[in-house]
Amino acid sequence: MSNALEIYKKKTKKSGLLFAKSKKFHVNGVSHNIRFFEPYPFVTKSAKGKYVYDIDGNKYTDYWMGHWSLILGHAAPPVASLVKKQLPSCWMHGTVNEMTISFSEIIQNAVPVAEKIRYASTGTEATMYAVRIARSVTGKKTIAKIDGGWHGYTSDLLKSINYPFSETESAGLVDESHIVSIPYNDLEKSLEILYGVKDDLAGVIIEPMLGGGGCIPATKEYLLGIQEFVHKNNALFLLDEIVTGFRFSFGCYYKTMNLDPDIITLGKIVGGGFPIGIICGKDEIMEASNSSLHKKLDRAYIGGGTFSANPITMTSGRAMLSFLKKNKSVYSKIGKLGQHARKELNKTFDGKVITTGMGSLFMTHFVSNGITQIRNATDAALCNTDLLHRYHFDMIAKDGIFFLPGKLGAISYYHSQSDVKDLIDASNRFSASI
Amino acid sequence: MSNALEIYKKKTKKSGLLFAKSKKFHVNGVSHNIRFFEPYPFVTKSAKGKYVYDIDGNKYTDYWMGHWSLILGHAAPPVASLVKKQLPSCWMHGTVNEMTISFSEIIQNAVPVAEKIRYASTGTEATMYAVRIARSVTGKKTIAKIDGGWHGYTSDLLKSINYPFSETESAGLVDESHIVSIPYNDLEKSLEILYGVKDDLAGVIIEPMLGGGGCIPATKEYLLGIQEFVHKNNALFLLDEIVTGFRFSFGCYYKTMNLDPDIITLGKIVGGGFPIGIICGKDEIMEASNSSLHKKLDRAYIGGGTFSANPITMTSGRAMLSFLKKNKSVYSKIGKLGQHARKELNKTFDGKVITTGMGSLFMTHFVSNGITQIRNATDAALCNTDLLHRYHFDMIAKDGIFFLPGKLGAISYYHSQSDVKDLIDASNRFSASI
Repeated sequence: MSNALEIYKKKTKKSGLLFAKSKKFHVNGVSHNIRFFEPYPFVTKSAKGKYVYDIDGNKYTDYWMGHWSLILGHAAPPVASLVKKQLPSCWMHGTVNEMTISFSEIIQNAVPVAEKIRYASTGTEATMYAVRIARSVTGKKTIAKIDGGWHGYTSDLLKSINYPFSETESAGLVDESHIVSIPYNDLEKSLEILYGVKDDLAGVIIEPMLGGGGCIPATKEYLLGIQEFVHKNNALFLLDEIVTGFRFSFGCYYKTMNLDPDIITLGKIVGGGFPIGIICGKDEIMEASNSSLHKKLDRAYIGGGTFSANPITMTSGRAMLSFLKKNKSVYSKIGKLGQHARKELNKTFDGKVITTGMGSLFMTHFVSNGITQIRNATDAALCNTDLLHRYHFDMIAKDGIFFLPGKLGAISYYHSQSDVKDLIDASNRFSASI
Repeated sequence: MSNALEIYKKKTKKSGLLFAKSKKFHVNGVSHNIRFFEPYPFVTKSAKGKYVYDIDGNKYTDYWMGHWSLILGHAAPPVASLVKKQLPSCWMHGTVNEMTISFSEIIQNAVPVAEKIRYASTGTEATMYAVRIARSVTGKKTIAKIDGGWHGYTSDLLKSINYPFSETESAGLVDESHIVSIPYNDLEKSLEILYGVKDDLAGVIIEPMLGGGGCIPATKEYLLGIQEFVHKNNALFLLDEIVTGFRFSFGCYYKTMNLDPDIITLGKIVGGGFPIGIICGKDEIMEASNSSLHKKLDRAYIGGGTFSANPITMTSGRAMLSFLKKNKSVYSKIGKLGQHARKELNKTFDGKVITTGMGSLFMTHFVSNGITQIRNATDAALCNTDLLHRYHFDMIAKDGIFFLPGKLGAISYYHSQSDVKDLIDASNRFSASI
């Protein structure tokens, strides 16, 4: 590690100086807590395809890919060209525009449950609205989420995010009592908890593959079991597909699983890299937010915000989805690379890790505390996360490979077999050193 | 009105058809409640300078200006050129970048209280974080806001927005008890209410000029009085300058008023038209959110989100502020036009309206219910808002002048004396018809 630290400091001198300046302007130097890592994060100059370049002239093969948003890599040409074309017609209308309608048409075709769509600008807003609609439609208040589930910073879901999932996540929260938390992939225990709150249960919100919580797919049995309970008890089934939407196939993951969600939240990939959050779902449920039909007390007050459905995000999102629709081979390519990476990483680390994930997403968990499988965020947290940080930092310093330390990796269309080979070679060297 | 309705329907046939399609995809056809107006909003094709163009080929002189964000008009060349240059280096890094640091340097110079800055992507997120920080720092829970104050859709401030300000604003809210509401520009009554909650008062959030609530400047006496009370009672003074920041001069409005806010929220203009929300303020307060310094229970968990500090918004915001810094004549120009518009509108309507506002922002209130002055959102709501809608719609239909019906108008750098003359002429015709 000290070796990696020295190498990193030496090759990122300018970044070190500029980051010190950044700390004068920004809390902890960053605008997102997780973007900070010790001793300091490199400062990005540009990014293109699979690479991120820092201001020191270093090049990193990027598996962080803009919080896993960039399935076609950085500055993807099909998106760039249409965005460039849109710029002279303005990036901000503040009115209804035609770009929104043609974008929604693509989404609705790919995501049948999106009978009605509303655009916001972030995932945090989308999940906030999902919760508000669930409470409005059901007239109940309790929302259940998963231990380790991450749905953004909304006050309505800021609970049970970090292990051990029982502590308050932040000072300054006033209403955690209407959020209950259930253990992922443990249907019996989850149903027991849900049963205890069923009369006030407005909805359950779940990522079908736990993202920030450890890159862990839900079992079909678990999702179906929760869905059945929720629907039996007049509550809504809210699927947060911000990470999984358009990640594994052209559409949402719920279709693959034959699920029947009431509301879906989307973000990341679907905006082509420009700010987006989407709340969509069944017509009768989404219509609860129709301010022309409902009076204040009956409506779910969901907005969008100043920048919602702006013509650049709409253009960018449409360019992204149009490309993916025409080039579904993207998914087989990156899915195969992901599968290969998981297999080779397991082989390389020879029992030291369990690699989780699906398709083009993967995460390496260093086993400790007797963990033998990763079924939920507790299992992931009990692994050796310090060693994971060390592994990722080691590759940043020595191999020019960038994972945000501690986070899952995302393969883009620009990654190749030879990148995976480089990753395995780097992992081999690290494995030999521990 | 029926005349205007016929004219509008005739000239916006394509918009009518496409909006009908939009209603199939979107709740009420829109992605922001206020963008809908009867019989249907025109569908925008493009926007440039002071004009918005619809898909029917109509041109509108725009005073809505993207929710009042576009002080340099649509597709402003100084912003467009730098954004275009940035595109090949990617619009999404997800890491610390150098654009953020140079942008923050400009902001900190112009807004001295911004000792620490954190970027989010929307105003809704910024005000949510402001509230969370206030509660974290003070260890108290009650937040006071203004009757008619609008701070976005965050659950933490969704109260007392629409007249009579005493009804619940939405179904599905779970914690309104920690929000109290005070009447704007009525110091005595406001202090009385604040006194009643002072032991639990975390902060007061105020727009120094009420935006959505009626384009009404606060009196200096009112702001100073609230500020004094707040600081005496160990609470924070939160100024929401999302509308007013960089609107009246190069910097924030609090400086003009010699105020001492603890936290400021910014948005709209400051992002150059790309999605942005900023929370900034005094160092020791902002540092409460430093996740490297504080443990979970002590920190204010504020994020930023996937798209925070993305290189396009940072570039766009920097281009906007750099231009305004070098061209401060923008403010004198649009300020004079605003003053002229207010004066002429009052003259034109000859006692039928009270025109409020300041600098380049103005709003025409049609007097009714014995209202003789507009000091707060109640006065504004008691005016004839139906007539205001009719007035605005009439100008959309007959004069190609666009205000979002019922909302305040914003003058941009592209507007000229002759535009104001057109507005006055149109207002004259309308005035003669009522």
